[in-house]
Amino acid sequence: MLTFIGLGLFDKNDISLKGLEAIKNADMVFAEFYTSRLMGSTIEELETLYCKPIHVLSREDVEISPNWLAEAQEKNVVFLTGGDTMVSTTHVDLRLRAKDMDINTRLIHGSSIASAICGLSGLQNYRFGKASTVPHPYTSIRGNTIISETPYDTIKLNKEHDMHTLIFLDIDKDKGYMTVNQALGLLLEIEKRRGEGVMENAIAVGIARAGSDEPIVKAGYVRHLQEEDFGEPLHILVVPASLHFIEAEAFVKLLGAPQEILDELDD
Amino acid sequence: MLTFIGLGLFDKNDISLKGLEAIKNADMVFAEFYTSRLMGSTIEELETLYCKPIHVLSREDVEISPNWLAEAQEKNVVFLTGGDTMVSTTHVDLRLRAKDMDINTRLIHGSSIASAICGLSGLQNYRFGKASTVPHPYTSIRGNTIISETPYDTIKLNKEHDMHTLIFLDIDKDKGYMTVNQALGLLLEIEKRRGEGVMENAIAVGIARAGSDEPIVKAGYVRHLQEEDFGEPLHILVVPASLHFIEAEAFVKLLGAPQEILDELDD
Repeated sequence: MLTFIGLGLFDKNDISLKGLEAIKNADMVFAEFYTSRLMGSTIEELETLYCKPIHVLSREDVEISPNWLAEAQEKNVVFLTGGDTMVSTTHVDLRLRAKDMDINTRLIHGSSIASAICGLSGLQNYRFGKASTVPHPYTSIRGNTIISETPYDTIKLNKEHDMHTLIFLDIDKDKGYMTVNQALGLLLEIEKRRGEGVMENAIAVGIARAGSDEPIVKAGYVRHLQEEDFGEPLHILVVPASLHFIEAEAFVKLLGAPQEILDELDD
Repeated sequence: MLTFIGLGLFDKNDISLKGLEAIKNADMVFAEFYTSRLMGSTIEELETLYCKPIHVLSREDVEISPNWLAEAQEKNVVFLTGGDTMVSTTHVDLRLRAKDMDINTRLIHGSSIASAICGLSGLQNYRFGKASTVPHPYTSIRGNTIISETPYDTIKLNKEHDMHTLIFLDIDKDKGYMTVNQALGLLLEIEKRRGEGVMENAIAVGIARAGSDEPIVKAGYVRHLQEEDFGEPLHILVVPASLHFIEAEAFVKLLGAPQEILDELDD
């Protein structure tokens, strides 16, 4: 039996009772922390809570040669990830391999930014369109800096249909965790090039350390938000479409957005 | 202090360790179960786990006269809901009222169908567009049966942009929990009237009891899926856009969809 367990948003205590019990009953505990990791706990802290060792898998162990899967043919094996479980394609692939090996699988879900974003921002869940990611720029063979235009296009498309956009920020082993400020800077640079008015005068929401005891959540005009300090990672960005009244009220009263956002709705 | 706690997807053991600790430390425990409830546990079972009584709030207590909020000015009060916390507009409104009363608020997240849908179906999270709800039909003053066309329009719009659609199914005090079968029947009726080819020959995914030990998840052509028995509530429906290879593979190998879905991709 292979049980996929989502550890939840931030630290060791975000796991569900059901998830912890499954770990306690497991013969072996595997985890991958390269697609998503808990920012608020170390692996040692997890091992102390579980009272057993965790085998941390590399990308190769997960995607190329997951030989450890064979353990689940005879034993109770759990596979841990940050956030909810099986959100990454890589995990679906593992489940398919397990199926081919006649291993039963089971999922135990954890909290995820996909829903947490609503509570944190006050934005309504059914108004979100497609999500996107702002990747770090890279240097082409000719030495040019390439900035992906995909997130800009996604925000534009969603706005055309009055949908909010959740934007994940790149995590790179070498280039580090992208900040809200960097992401806004990149989006404004594409705006400067294309001039389509998607980001200029737009309102955005920057979120840091969702799921922690003291997340930072700030809403405001992009130019102002770019000046704010969001502190430690992970950061997430939302670019909303038009705001319903209660969404605007949440922005102003809870997230520090300027009063004029609400006044404009009254006009 | 007012702490909003999401109880997670299905039963009492879906709460996080963090959530349970906050309840144990609370002076008073309030809950509302009319926007979302745990299908797998009774209120008595929750009270036994928490070792304290739960004050279950009516819609009026939450939306019209939430006098109980005053308790949070002096005491540690927790407010429980099924799924993740603060996903409903009603909860944002409570948080705004608390802010007006100078009550500090804090969120503890729980697992939610918004992310669980990905693991359960194998569909990629960033490919979902706007979500929708299929409501129960109602009878107009003139005695006609009215079927909402909104979910049909949402599926159509999302498909035009190659996005999947998550569809919530109505929960009504009198008309009951809508099933996958009923929802597909209503969508096909709109298709018959409008003939826009959104549902005819479409693939869909029906999900029942997400978060339980034995959820049912089946993918297939709408006409076939309509014949399946999904058992007890809650049911959820997904109408995907075009399928990427691994999504189609998950449909065929894990969710019982016909092999031709994969064969068509190879052509």
